[in-house]
Amino acid sequence: MDPREEETTPPQQIPPAARRHAESALTPADAARYDARFASRAAGIVSSVMRDLMSLAERPDIISLAGGFPNTESFERRVFDDVVEAVARDHLASALQYGPTEGLHELRERIVEMMAEGGAAADVDDIMVTSGGQQAIDLSIRTFVDPGDTILAEGPTYPGAVPSFTTYEARVEHVPMDEDGLRVDLVEAALDRLAAEGRPPKLLYTIPNFHNPGGVTMSLERRRRLIRIAHERELIVVEDNPYGWIRFEGDPLPTLWELDDGAGWVIHLSTFSKILSPGVRVGWIAAPAAVLRKMNLGKQAQDLCTSTLSQRIVVEYMRRYDWRDYVARLNAIYRSRRDAMLRALEEEMPPEATWTHPEGGLFLWATMPPYIDTTDLLALAVEKYEVAFVPGRGAFLDGRGGDSMRLNFSGVDEATIAEGVRRLGLAVAEMTELHRALGGLT
Amino acid sequence: MDPREEETTPPQQIPPAARRHAESALTPADAARYDARFASRAAGIVSSVMRDLMSLAERPDIISLAGGFPNTESFERRVFDDVVEAVARDHLASALQYGPTEGLHELRERIVEMMAEGGAAADVDDIMVTSGGQQAIDLSIRTFVDPGDTILAEGPTYPGAVPSFTTYEARVEHVPMDEDGLRVDLVEAALDRLAAEGRPPKLLYTIPNFHNPGGVTMSLERRRRLIRIAHERELIVVEDNPYGWIRFEGDPLPTLWELDDGAGWVIHLSTFSKILSPGVRVGWIAAPAAVLRKMNLGKQAQDLCTSTLSQRIVVEYMRRYDWRDYVARLNAIYRSRRDAMLRALEEEMPPEATWTHPEGGLFLWATMPPYIDTTDLLALAVEKYEVAFVPGRGAFLDGRGGDSMRLNFSGVDEATIAEGVRRLGLAVAEMTELHRALGGLT
Repeated sequence: MDPREEETTPPQQIPPAARRHAESALTPADAARYDARFASRAAGIVSSVMRDLMSLAERPDIISLAGGFPNTESFERRVFDDVVEAVARDHLASALQYGPTEGLHELRERIVEMMAEGGAAADVDDIMVTSGGQQAIDLSIRTFVDPGDTILAEGPTYPGAVPSFTTYEARVEHVPMDEDGLRVDLVEAALDRLAAEGRPPKLLYTIPNFHNPGGVTMSLERRRRLIRIAHERELIVVEDNPYGWIRFEGDPLPTLWELDDGAGWVIHLSTFSKILSPGVRVGWIAAPAAVLRKMNLGKQAQDLCTSTLSQRIVVEYMRRYDWRDYVARLNAIYRSRRDAMLRALEEEMPPEATWTHPEGGLFLWATMPPYIDTTDLLALAVEKYEVAFVPGRGAFLDGRGGDSMRLNFSGVDEATIAEGVRRLGLAVAEMTELHRALGGLT
Repeated sequence: MDPREEETTPPQQIPPAARRHAESALTPADAARYDARFASRAAGIVSSVMRDLMSLAERPDIISLAGGFPNTESFERRVFDDVVEAVARDHLASALQYGPTEGLHELRERIVEMMAEGGAAADVDDIMVTSGGQQAIDLSIRTFVDPGDTILAEGPTYPGAVPSFTTYEARVEHVPMDEDGLRVDLVEAALDRLAAEGRPPKLLYTIPNFHNPGGVTMSLERRRRLIRIAHERELIVVEDNPYGWIRFEGDPLPTLWELDDGAGWVIHLSTFSKILSPGVRVGWIAAPAAVLRKMNLGKQAQDLCTSTLSQRIVVEYMRRYDWRDYVARLNAIYRSRRDAMLRALEEEMPPEATWTHPEGGLFLWATMPPYIDTTDLLALAVEKYEVAFVPGRGAFLDGRGGDSMRLNFSGVDEATIAEGVRRLGLAVAEMTELHRALGGLT
């Protein structure tokens, strides 16, 4: 089930010449010499807990509820074959060549059509293709945030965005969520306070749909109010929308981009990772032209252009197949896995634990009794019970999140989810017992 | 011939909803509001002249000697079909999935084997896969350079690295080259001077083989001396080696990585762009583990991982085919194109003009009589004579390069090169005539 299991096959024969370097490996004392030379952005960068766990989750004996792997096993081989055949027949030399930094024009047209179907109007010139949704986040922060600048983000926020926040040395002010998503009333309060402190935020980073890791969705009323605030206060809102189409129930809500209606205060980020494949690494940014121009220069520096082969594969796929059929198939799978997880949590978790009930996306957020530290719990869960999750601290920059965890329900099947949550319940019970024995509970 | 020609086909039908945004496009006054909000790294970033010209060169009537397009037309369809068939059969779900940030283990093994064949010993743990050679450059600068830090680079330096230098606000000190590459004696002088000024450089960025844009190669003696300096002065050397295998004549020289012999002062960058395809966007960094760890965090923030599909395609290609056969085929093509360009320059350029005679790579560097400004020349050349090149200023950060230009000989065939250089000669002659008429020559 783990997509990188095959990576654990024994390494092939390495030529003898290659051994020399390994033998002359640096001692820790040697390595220390680099420390003084790293840029402060590199010295300060905090690893995404999520990514560190991906190497942990590679152990085949571990049930991983940690990663954010979409189900790529449902992608049909005959579709892939048909798409690459079209690429090879009609576009081989250009698919293997460099392309424009902003992305293939035909792909940007397809993206405009997709957005229009969701009600969001955009022009081809509003769109820049990125190397996955991660680059869209990184370019947004790179373009606006100087070291020490303040930004607003939900608390918890997307753990994968944390390395970009720390790289560019942003000061992150978390704004809480509830079951209706971001507490927009508290955004206003934060803006007032930060203005008084002389450090108005450069931007608000938010995931309105099926928040990662929060598992909640911003209500329509709050979306409208947030856009009103953005317009009145001239606040740039970075709307990260990787999961918008991954809805299992309820009606789709307009994006912040749509509600902004061309006023230019919303930068919209999305990706093909969840609706087609993360392995192709194709995402996009919709933004006003003046912003996109700066982001284009940042992307030139980062990777010149997104894989032309990947882009061409996405174009030919979108042209030949109805992506909504595939997404509908994925959603049916994820819905049933989410239900399996909710059922298992109900059965296995102590009564003081709570969790969110996502209407879509890949994750839910579970909060343990306050005496459980989920970072400690992870060590126990992995070592003794062979189950992994993302501990909550990776989703905060202020040390909070110690009682919470992110659970993924897209990556493994129902039976594995049930077994994983059962093991997690045993780990929680053991820590509860330990706490009780130490006199923490009466 | 231009790989993005197909991109100029008329846009497809755009849904009516999408038009609204274009109509409400921002006025320049509206756009100005973003200026105050950009990070200073974004405000200061200078576009790579090379990339700006790529959009110019898209005009089908222009003969472009500007871009750095490898010849992807020689890649055989049956090879591509065979490789993607293997990917689809054995690895489809994992090729469409996320992968580890450092790259697929099997690909890193192939890279170690390739490097060993060139005499450079490395361990799999010394290797990180990147999204093309550009990301390898960007991560190197991101990891070491704080705003205001000094770095050394050849003058001229790679125009594509300039946006990374400016993004991270490096102060670039250019060190001249001659026909034997970087003037390593002047590196020592620069180190002395900069130490006296209290700003020792964080690193030296160099392209020893078939320099882009210089077209020259660092001699073995200078390589040895540079490594001695690096060891004595504790200078980090970033060796960018995208063209190492693209040699038409003369014996291969050891890389700086090889000469460093595991001492840890060289960071080696390379790419599959010139030996397989730039469209797959797969490159790599070889570096000491302590450095790679920081770069891995930077890559997590930038794009999580390089396209797994691209990586898998490279692995299956390397496993099934002898990449050296393909490179030999490319080298035969490039050699004959280089010869065509050298012949044409001899015929068409005025006697005061000089140019380098590359033993490999994709580019040569031509210097015009001092009264010709190549930025002005480019405007005339494109408008009236329909030929494009990269003006020399894009390869300097100190305003120099106005009398020089980079010419690419890999992207178009011999007849087109001859015609392109003929047109260039006409543009130079017209500017010379104008200069004479204005009394600049007696």
